[in-house]
Amino acid sequence: MTTSSTDSSTGTQPTEAPAHSGHGAGPHGYSSHKADHLKRLRRIEGQARGLQRMVEEDVYCIDILTQVSATTKALQSFALALLDEHIKHCVAAAVEEGGSAMDEKVSEAMTAISRLLRS
Amino acid sequence: MTTSSTDSSTGTQPTEAPAHSGHGAGPHGYSSHKADHLKRLRRIEGQARGLQRMVEEDVYCIDILTQVSATTKALQSFALALLDEHIKHCVAAAVEEGGSAMDEKVSEAMTAISRLLRS
Amino acid sequence: MTTSSTDSSTGTQPTEAPAHSGHGAGPHGYSSHKADHLKRLRRIEGQARGLQRMVEEDVYCIDILTQVSATTKALQSFALALLDEHIKHCVAAAVEEGGSAMDEKVSEAMTAISRLLRS
Amino acid sequence: MTTSSTDSSTGTQPTEAPAHSGHGAGPHGYSSHKADHLKRLRRIEGQARGLQRMVEEDVYCIDILTQVSATTKALQSFALALLDEHIKHCVAAAVEEGGSAMDEKVSEAMTAISRLLRS
Repeated sequence: MTTSSTDSSTGTQPTEAPAHSGHGAGPHGYSSHKADHLKRLRRIEGQARGLQRMVEEDVYCIDILTQVSATTKALQSFALALLDEHIKHCVAAAVEEGGSAMDEKVSEAMTAISRLLRS
Repeated sequence: MTTSSTDSSTGTQPTEAPAHSGHGAGPHGYSSHKADHLKRLRRIEGQARGLQRMVEEDVYCIDILTQVSATTKALQSFALALLDEHIKHCVAAAVEEGGSAMDEKVSEAMTAISRLLRS
Repeated sequence: MTTSSTDSSTGTQPTEAPAHSGHGAGPHGYSSHKADHLKRLRRIEGQARGLQRMVEEDVYCIDILTQVSATTKALQSFALALLDEHIKHCVAAAVEEGGSAMDEKVSEAMTAISRLLRS
Repeated sequence: MTTSSTDSSTGTQPTEAPAHSGHGAGPHGYSSHKADHLKRLRRIEGQARGLQRMVEEDVYCIDILTQVSATTKALQSFALALLDEHIKHCVAAAVEEGGSAMDEKVSEAMTAISRLLRS
């Protein structure tokens, strides 16, 4: 109910960003979708806060578990969106660079996918 | 960095709790572990905020994905803790009530487990 | 190539089963659904064989991955069916036995659920 | 019971394979690892058969669930190995082809990854 005030913390971040943007505009494919990613993540943060409210208010466990599943799904969707851009940008760049650069990038991506599958 | 202020939102919840406590002390097994659950969830909220910071600061995608996996794992651990108490309290109570009450509770729990597996 | 010989082991099992049936009819809730479980598992075995055929015939990787997902889903459904019966029978029996028996059974079931979630 | 006869199908495949090999040697990255993949899949088939034996012999449910987790993990490892080769070969080939070919291949791979995550 009174959680809106907490959102202001994320509102102050953008002022720090410019210092990094030269770097971000380079190899990181997700830069162009930054606003989308932040929106998703703010919603996930809100879901984590909603879970706290449910526990505080003694909501029935099964309903809390439903909300946990929704939050996990939202996190996975964010991960898939990030991975999609990563493969399109970083892996593609490595392919153009040639040979071992690509193998390293793909192995790294596979490790990340494997970690997502096991979590 | 300046995220500590946002925690105050959860700090105000306990004053509302007493109104629900009669209800919570009843069928909801997780009441006794409320403090633990809230602690876990506040950490998950912090992880969601950390992910926003990473995106803002153009952190390398693979490192963000590692953090997503950690957050998902934390959510799953919370879900398992909740489910453990649910089975020990609600399902056990239904077993003592007898027959169809138990079948309903177990089916409901299975649906929740199946949803967790697919998320 | 020479895997066919191992199949005979399953063909001979039914004759041994009666020796265990007194035991199986006891605490193991899944006995009454044995035929269903075996049918599901034979289908899963067929899917594993279908995957081999796909690899042999150089089927497109993405189509093989779709079949892997279907096989995994079938395994999860089997696990959920088994878990449902386990909770309804073994856990319920432990609840009636009282106290620590139930805690042990629930902890054991939670470990199994947690393993399924991570696999 | 009479599943052994179906096994012969995989035994006869290799003789058909040459007809496809020109095609398989092309875009399908997994051709060079065919023997490894088939070995893994035969082991998975054996695990599925082992599960049937466990059910036949009324093995304790929790032990069967442990074996289901191991089988699921083996399937996921096979999927990851296939995906690794797919990205290194098909996706890399699409990157060299340029633009929309790559986007299509990556989207297709992402759909497969997403399906694995949800299964």
